Amino acid sequence: MYQLIENGSVTSAKGFKAAGIFCGIKRKKKDLALIYSELPCTTAGTFTLNKVKAAPLLISQEVIKKSEHTKAVLINSGNANACTGDEGFNDALDMQKWCAEKLNIFTNEVLISSTGVIGQKMPMEKIKSGIDEIVNQLSEQGGFSAAEAIMTTDTKIKSFAYEVKLKKSNVIIGGICKGSGMIMPNMATMLGFISTDAAVEKSLLSELLVNSVQKSFNKISVDGETSTNDMVVLLANGASGVAIEKDTEDMKIFQEALTSLCILMAKSIVSDGEGATKLVTVNVKNVKSQVDADLIGKSIANSSLVKTAIYGADANWGRILSAAGQSGADFEPSKVSILFNDLPVLLPNYSLVLDEEQASKILSQSEFSINIDINNGIENSTWWTCDLTEEYVRINADYRT
Amino acid sequence: MYQLIENGSVTSAKGFKAAGIFCGIKRKKKDLALIYSELPCTTAGTFTLNKVKAAPLLISQEVIKKSEHTKAVLINSGNANACTGDEGFNDALDMQKWCAEKLNIFTNEVLISSTGVIGQKMPMEKIKSGIDEIVNQLSEQGGFSAAEAIMTTDTKIKSFAYEVKLKKSNVIIGGICKGSGMIMPNMATMLGFISTDAAVEKSLLSELLVNSVQKSFNKISVDGETSTNDMVVLLANGASGVAIEKDTEDMKIFQEALTSLCILMAKSIVSDGEGATKLVTVNVKNVKSQVDADLIGKSIANSSLVKTAIYGADANWGRILSAAGQSGADFEPSKVSILFNDLPVLLPNYSLVLDEEQASKILSQSEFSINIDINNGIENSTWWTCDLTEEYVRINADYRT
Repeated sequence: MYQLIENGSVTSAKGFKAAGIFCGIKRKKKDLALIYSELPCTTAGTFTLNKVKAAPLLISQEVIKKSEHTKAVLINSGNANACTGDEGFNDALDMQKWCAEKLNIFTNEVLISSTGVIGQKMPMEKIKSGIDEIVNQLSEQGGFSAAEAIMTTDTKIKSFAYEVKLKKSNVIIGGICKGSGMIMPNMATMLGFISTDAAVEKSLLSELLVNSVQKSFNKISVDGETSTNDMVVLLANGASGVAIEKDTEDMKIFQEALTSLCILMAKSIVSDGEGATKLVTVNVKNVKSQVDADLIGKSIANSSLVKTAIYGADANWGRILSAAGQSGADFEPSKVSILFNDLPVLLPNYSLVLDEEQASKILSQSEFSINIDINNGIENSTWWTCDLTEEYVRINADYRT
Repeated sequence: MYQLIENGSVTSAKGFKAAGIFCGIKRKKKDLALIYSELPCTTAGTFTLNKVKAAPLLISQEVIKKSEHTKAVLINSGNANACTGDEGFNDALDMQKWCAEKLNIFTNEVLISSTGVIGQKMPMEKIKSGIDEIVNQLSEQGGFSAAEAIMTTDTKIKSFAYEVKLKKSNVIIGGICKGSGMIMPNMATMLGFISTDAAVEKSLLSELLVNSVQKSFNKISVDGETSTNDMVVLLANGASGVAIEKDTEDMKIFQEALTSLCILMAKSIVSDGEGATKLVTVNVKNVKSQVDADLIGKSIANSSLVKTAIYGADANWGRILSAAGQSGADFEPSKVSILFNDLPVLLPNYSLVLDEEQASKILSQSEFSINIDINNGIENSTWWTCDLTEEYVRINADYRT
């Protein structure tokens, strides 16, 4: 029903242009990105739950709440514009205004987003020149350039798109994102920008995005931290001429494709996590309630002891069970079984069937899954995590200096 | 009102004997400890909230619930007897029974406790011989030996006692504990054993212990993990002839001394945390509610990003504020101020007064405090944490192999 587009990006969907340039916030690398659609886009967004929210995030939240549609997203890296007080807030408003002026659109059609160091003034002169320049660089091939410009400690460009086969015609969904520490508040932030040429009514778009984010971006952990600047936005410009209506077969397919795209993006963030050498899927099965299933998955995905054991390729099932036990979820430990990929390790009644050699082989791979069957209900939860390495400590101990 | 006793231990209080021996659970080091009072002791305990509970912990919980008094605590290290099913449970019952027989007391006067690897059978033959031997080793100087025998990856013996001046006469409170990873479920566990020669009625003793643990052992974090075997118990044998009555001045003093002792013990666990090089006190001040104050303290003390920044002596106040922000507590970030020791770093309205050189000097010390004023109420919360180092990753990645 949907398939990956080679070299897909946020500009794969019809009518979207983008660009990424260097404007001088960072020392050398690209640090300003712009995504633009001439056609108005219905827009949905999900934002950090951190009580400390950066100025651009607050402004974008307001835009999505109040505007019928948007046309542009301006993103800078290298400076988070967080904890910068009134001055930072006014700077963010200026960025939004300048961008709108240059694009000749309304201020409330522009979303803004920042990622980088907390608590430092924005270099507004450089950003102003940058905005002047980037508007002229917009192109239908600009998605990758934009993806590059939003990177911080990321080591890989994260850009994907799907073609989705609907009843009458096809639509495209594409996105770019960045992560790296998920999330390191200092040079920080998980950001995702997704576009589609489907036409989707605003409240439905929001519903679709929330559903997909819940199963993807909200199910990953590099270090269990959330940032002041996290956001994922979805813009739908309708350029394909295909409308997605509520409670139709097309909506289901679109939702599935969107979730799959978001999972691709989310996994790309985890596998490029700071210091990470392994991408691990945690499947929690047969739990009494969805809340409990999520609690168990989160506790395992966030556990420093599980993550160091993964790093050491140590088949340490005790840490996995204990992490589940401290999640706050209701279950009976003696009913649990644990598998690495398809290899049973622990069966109910604490029956240990661990083949250390086989297990160690699996745990040495760069990608594998931990499957934990709680045997106490029917709800499931899937999470993605990475290992905790000496390199993570080095990156984060040395970072600011 | 109370003062530290030099070389104090769990045998400092009158009428308590202890011993620690090697019985063969570990390869070389002492692995069996016994604490004993001929006089019956009223007894209180606090236990792990982890859903996965080890057999000896479940048994001790029952003893404290049902027995009027206890006389002995038998502890082994090297094997946690957790996730060992019915067989493990029966083994724990046997340990309790054998110990009672040897001491010529009732089975339900014996508490048992284990720490070590999860999911492995207990070497019961060795333990049986060990119990035979250790009973003969009991002495009033045996506290340190017992403290040594409960260690796992701890690098230091943890043993303390206070003399407490009450109205008529003095009493003594002493304790031993172990931690190291707080808590690594595989060779694991925070254990604390406290004795006093005061006479304290059972329900009051429990009240006193819960209050003190809440302000000490429940406020420390090495890696945010809780174990299957965590427990702190307090035995009061009345040998001093001094009774502590509810709602008296003496009770207040005793409570204070007990809290202070528990804090000493708890801090000794953090500063000897796996890979730790720094002991950091986190003081959260002026919060709307106690729950919120605790949430903020816990979030800062548990944050991998804060802990790596401490390791790197990086004055990364943004990570501290962001950790507070993701705690779930209600507060206004722009009202917050942050100090390292007495050095202001961030003042309200995001006014940054950071002197990098001075801050770096403080953060390079082996002990300092992070003081965060939320400026939104009157409740406070103090936590203790350590840095997250490459050594922590190495210890936990390599541990089991």
